[in-house]
Amino acid sequence: MARETVPSAGAVRPELVAFDAALEADNIIAHWRREFGPPGPTSQGEPCLWKWERIHQHLLTAADLIGVQEAGRRTLHLCPPGMHATTHTLSMCVQLNKPGEIATAHRHTMTALRFIIQGTGAYTTVEGEAVALYPGDLVTTPSWGYHDHWVEPNGSEPVIWVDGLDSPFVYLLDAKFSNQFPQPQQPRTVRADFTRDLQGVVRPVGHEGDPVHQPAVYRWTEVRPALERFAQDDGDPCDGVVLDYVNPVTGGHMGPTIGCRIQMLRVGERTMGHRHTASAAYHVVEGEGVTLVGDRQLEWSKGDCFNIPNWQWHRHEQRGGSPAVLWSMHDQPVYEAVGLYREERR
Amino acid sequence: MARETVPSAGAVRPELVAFDAALEADNIIAHWRREFGPPGPTSQGEPCLWKWERIHQHLLTAADLIGVQEAGRRTLHLCPPGMHATTHTLSMCVQLNKPGEIATAHRHTMTALRFIIQGTGAYTTVEGEAVALYPGDLVTTPSWGYHDHWVEPNGSEPVIWVDGLDSPFVYLLDAKFSNQFPQPQQPRTVRADFTRDLQGVVRPVGHEGDPVHQPAVYRWTEVRPALERFAQDDGDPCDGVVLDYVNPVTGGHMGPTIGCRIQMLRVGERTMGHRHTASAAYHVVEGEGVTLVGDRQLEWSKGDCFNIPNWQWHRHEQRGGSPAVLWSMHDQPVYEAVGLYREERR
Amino acid sequence: MARETVPSAGAVRPELVAFDAALEADNIIAHWRREFGPPGPTSQGEPCLWKWERIHQHLLTAADLIGVQEAGRRTLHLCPPGMHATTHTLSMCVQLNKPGEIATAHRHTMTALRFIIQGTGAYTTVEGEAVALYPGDLVTTPSWGYHDHWVEPNGSEPVIWVDGLDSPFVYLLDAKFSNQFPQPQQPRTVRADFTRDLQGVVRPVGHEGDPVHQPAVYRWTEVRPALERFAQDDGDPCDGVVLDYVNPVTGGHMGPTIGCRIQMLRVGERTMGHRHTASAAYHVVEGEGVTLVGDRQLEWSKGDCFNIPNWQWHRHEQRGGSPAVLWSMHDQPVYEAVGLYREERR
Amino acid sequence: MARETVPSAGAVRPELVAFDAALEADNIIAHWRREFGPPGPTSQGEPCLWKWERIHQHLLTAADLIGVQEAGRRTLHLCPPGMHATTHTLSMCVQLNKPGEIATAHRHTMTALRFIIQGTGAYTTVEGEAVALYPGDLVTTPSWGYHDHWVEPNGSEPVIWVDGLDSPFVYLLDAKFSNQFPQPQQPRTVRADFTRDLQGVVRPVGHEGDPVHQPAVYRWTEVRPALERFAQDDGDPCDGVVLDYVNPVTGGHMGPTIGCRIQMLRVGERTMGHRHTASAAYHVVEGEGVTLVGDRQLEWSKGDCFNIPNWQWHRHEQRGGSPAVLWSMHDQPVYEAVGLYREERR
Repeated sequence: MARETVPSAGAVRPELVAFDAALEADNIIAHWRREFGPPGPTSQGEPCLWKWERIHQHLLTAADLIGVQEAGRRTLHLCPPGMHATTHTLSMCVQLNKPGEIATAHRHTMTALRFIIQGTGAYTTVEGEAVALYPGDLVTTPSWGYHDHWVEPNGSEPVIWVDGLDSPFVYLLDAKFSNQFPQPQQPRTVRADFTRDLQGVVRPVGHEGDPVHQPAVYRWTEVRPALERFAQDDGDPCDGVVLDYVNPVTGGHMGPTIGCRIQMLRVGERTMGHRHTASAAYHVVEGEGVTLVGDRQLEWSKGDCFNIPNWQWHRHEQRGGSPAVLWSMHDQPVYEAVGLYREERR
Repeated sequence: MARETVPSAGAVRPELVAFDAALEADNIIAHWRREFGPPGPTSQGEPCLWKWERIHQHLLTAADLIGVQEAGRRTLHLCPPGMHATTHTLSMCVQLNKPGEIATAHRHTMTALRFIIQGTGAYTTVEGEAVALYPGDLVTTPSWGYHDHWVEPNGSEPVIWVDGLDSPFVYLLDAKFSNQFPQPQQPRTVRADFTRDLQGVVRPVGHEGDPVHQPAVYRWTEVRPALERFAQDDGDPCDGVVLDYVNPVTGGHMGPTIGCRIQMLRVGERTMGHRHTASAAYHVVEGEGVTLVGDRQLEWSKGDCFNIPNWQWHRHEQRGGSPAVLWSMHDQPVYEAVGLYREERR
Repeated sequence: MARETVPSAGAVRPELVAFDAALEADNIIAHWRREFGPPGPTSQGEPCLWKWERIHQHLLTAADLIGVQEAGRRTLHLCPPGMHATTHTLSMCVQLNKPGEIATAHRHTMTALRFIIQGTGAYTTVEGEAVALYPGDLVTTPSWGYHDHWVEPNGSEPVIWVDGLDSPFVYLLDAKFSNQFPQPQQPRTVRADFTRDLQGVVRPVGHEGDPVHQPAVYRWTEVRPALERFAQDDGDPCDGVVLDYVNPVTGGHMGPTIGCRIQMLRVGERTMGHRHTASAAYHVVEGEGVTLVGDRQLEWSKGDCFNIPNWQWHRHEQRGGSPAVLWSMHDQPVYEAVGLYREERR
Repeated sequence: MARETVPSAGAVRPELVAFDAALEADNIIAHWRREFGPPGPTSQGEPCLWKWERIHQHLLTAADLIGVQEAGRRTLHLCPPGMHATTHTLSMCVQLNKPGEIATAHRHTMTALRFIIQGTGAYTTVEGEAVALYPGDLVTTPSWGYHDHWVEPNGSEPVIWVDGLDSPFVYLLDAKFSNQFPQPQQPRTVRADFTRDLQGVVRPVGHEGDPVHQPAVYRWTEVRPALERFAQDDGDPCDGVVLDYVNPVTGGHMGPTIGCRIQMLRVGERTMGHRHTASAAYHVVEGEGVTLVGDRQLEWSKGDCFNIPNWQWHRHEQRGGSPAVLWSMHDQPVYEAVGLYREERR
């Protein structure tokens, strides 16, 4: 980011060196001691691929080694070399909970979401509503909503999902607030499916929607067929068949800091390159292919995760005999909100 | 509306009478010649009930007597005594088309909608997309969208629906534009279900929604179960379980001039009285009950239609052993847009 | 508006005539009995010019003949032949008050405004704030705000202004509410210039602006110089140098039902013709010229008023040696709010 | 910010230590290795006061030691100990230019503004419009607008102003784009006062305002009297008489990333403490007083600058015989845009 102070050309003059020191003693840094840096973004972090075999193995090891109470959340955070998160604003994690386990109730200003990879019998309770989770479902935990997770005790298998958060961005703004719920689990106060029903074509008269704090549930049984139907249309030159998860209150991005997408690369589809100020993290739901990011070639198949840092050229190619389906999260809403979103296409 | 000029108290003075005449010769009307009228709305038209037996019989007679080509649309307009429309801003009509018939393609600035009462095999083509119609479905024809209706030739029964329009309001503003499509039917240029898909929880990235001109399809197979589920919640004191049909672009009322609602009166439910500056027209989808409007008692059952003029006190009572379901349209969006919506509750 | 029922071609068939009568007995009107009317607006009312000499003479006569108490407001309403208002949605009136007179305090859902023509020493009190009025000032009285007018007793001349209201539109919607203030004048509860200050480049933190109910004061000492400065720029082909009075909360039209404009026709300027679904009423502030509306030629000079009905072609020509300045009010906000605004240019 | 990985309690188990290392080899960090940190913001940087005597002396020294060409901008950046900017999202700098100097034309995605401290004869050209600068004026340079500064050669004194930028925030998002204009100065393409005129009570019909890119000019001759008039009203318990500089397009904060305020502490005024997630930087325009931030006591007088880091308790006390006037910039718009703005009052 080139924000460090450096000796400028002028600074070789001894009188300037002395002056700079005098300024520094008064908590002042002269403009001419800064490198202004390159004329565009430098891109934060590098593209990275996490193979499902490794992720899965690590999760099983973690399930053996550490209890959910001890761990807080049994979560593995995908962080490229030198990075503290998946991108400069987003965290992509994978979480495993075994039958009978409870990830206790808390809340925080970070916006979170879960995209279910495998297993059944898990529930997330958000603000008093228990939501059953099935593979492919996307469930959001808006900023400052209490949430806890649990798996039915009589299940036969652990449940694994992707956790997405805007933690790095909230830390950049130093705006993290958090607290524990007084009990391990919050009581159910809202009937089943209430949140999901609020996203339908009809909605209670006078319901006060809140674009930041209203949770949302996107069922795979709805999303997957929609993807199939839109696959009949042209699609986008850079992303194939690509759909936004829609915020039920605003009609825009899923949340104020994170947007989500589901996309299909049809058999033989190779997209055009582009880059944008937003960054993204991906999880492969079906099929296989390759994504070229900068000078990297990420060869992915079902279950893998990868990231695309901000402002890096990238394009996708489907491989194999069936379409590939990618789920992703991105920080475009932040860039749009402050007028800093840009995209370039080749 | 008391806008007529009247002799004021002062006008008995001969010099004022002469002056008023001099003004009138110059196309001027003095303030003191006007009755300012009552301090609130006078209410336009009277409550009226149309029984299904009569509506249905008249439709069958019309089907015998007049062809769809001759009639333009084979439509019966429900108009209370002295009114040219169902309320001062809304038209509720019923339409019947027989197998093989075509209601030819045109467009107009009036916003229209159809709520299907009975029959299958009918289609509405809106802006190049053919939408199959099933009982209980609501399909909109936004302002200035080409639309034509047709029933498959090999069907066994006529198809009947409610037509809703904002024609009276558009006439009040003298803003009607209309024209015929060059051919009787417009070609299909959009794949099936495209409009419906745009209302789902996911939506193509970059799709430019237009809150005034984007059509919408609300399937009964979605709306009816949602109503059932929301019936578990408290409901509204004046309307029972009442849901807005949501505009897929704005998240607000169905359109800029017409809103639609579906509501359930649960067994034994009797609502509290209220009145509002908006007017409404109803169609009974299931069950029976009574609506008290002003000093009228409208006893309705399945298939009936009725209106509630603006600013009339009204309340609903369910009757019989099963819930009543009412579909309605209203002009509340207009009143809200210009800051003139008001409601009073008893 | 062609909403009357007429015998259609088909109606000559006796069985249809009988059927139509049976329908009418059931409060139903068949579609085929309606003329659908022309494919565009029919235009409401005709263009009309009111010369200042006549307006002024009538105001002086009214000042002699009728007291402000007796008259309610000493107001003359400019109504083209056959019309109950200046256009189908707008009322333009002229009002005169003599030194010492009080037009008592009331409120109503109609939005009102005053544009001062001549005289000093007058005040309008709006929601507890007394606003001194000077020629050329525009002061709004938003929907449901209490207002009273008064002229200082020691003044030497009567004060004359233009009153603008959306009364016809509010009557069309049957949404008039009104009531008198308990005393003839409301007490002053807000410091001088508070409303004007809220329109400046700085504004109290946390001030809750209300786009419908916040009053506004536009001083001629600001508006006239701005007009002069913008006259250096290109201007609009149909209207010359034309400025919107800006709502201080929304940044859009002055109010939800009425917009106002000030425009200059520079020496020799002749504008291009256009027509739009909105209607307008004008008052000539400076200079002279001619406006061609439909087949009428309205030759106006300082003080005159005229109207342009909806959807009539019109263009302006400046005359004489100095620029002409026109103030006007229009109903474009209503048409835009419901998606029915259209304009055509030659 | 506590984002560093740390040995957790569990990590003393050797098998966990080995596992964590295996994870790290795969670019994964386990949740249990993170400190979750405190339940609220940690606050970035410390409060700091820069006295005018020192700032001024340093500027004069800089004027002697380094030319504007060599320096790029002759700008001193106020950076508390350990910080690279004034707050975690904002840069406050002071700049001096001598008669005849030119700070060459460039543009960048950073939003910038200037608040003039002393001197006349300076101009900023923004997107082709030259704006003359007088003490107390605030002139914005929106994101991606070309701008250059120059002082008339025949002037007798240097011109000094405050530069405000959102550079740290743009760097956090890694969204800096910049380039030089081909010539040292851009040509004038827009008439004088055009930008200022767009902020008045009237505005050209059809002018397309852009909330991110439209410049704004706030004249001290307007702002100071408004402050005086609002000083008659109650004011805010935490900030005295405090006014927002209003974005002329949105009616909201000055820009998407920076808001500005002018505030008066009346004689004897002592405000109530509060803290908020937003940070701020201040410049003292008139008078003297003390601001208590956390455990610091910043005693300021005319010309001084100070910062208030995010989420630190602070309150103000006026001192001396005349009111104090503070100008400030803050990052509240960013926090509001993403739903992370919070305030607590004592």
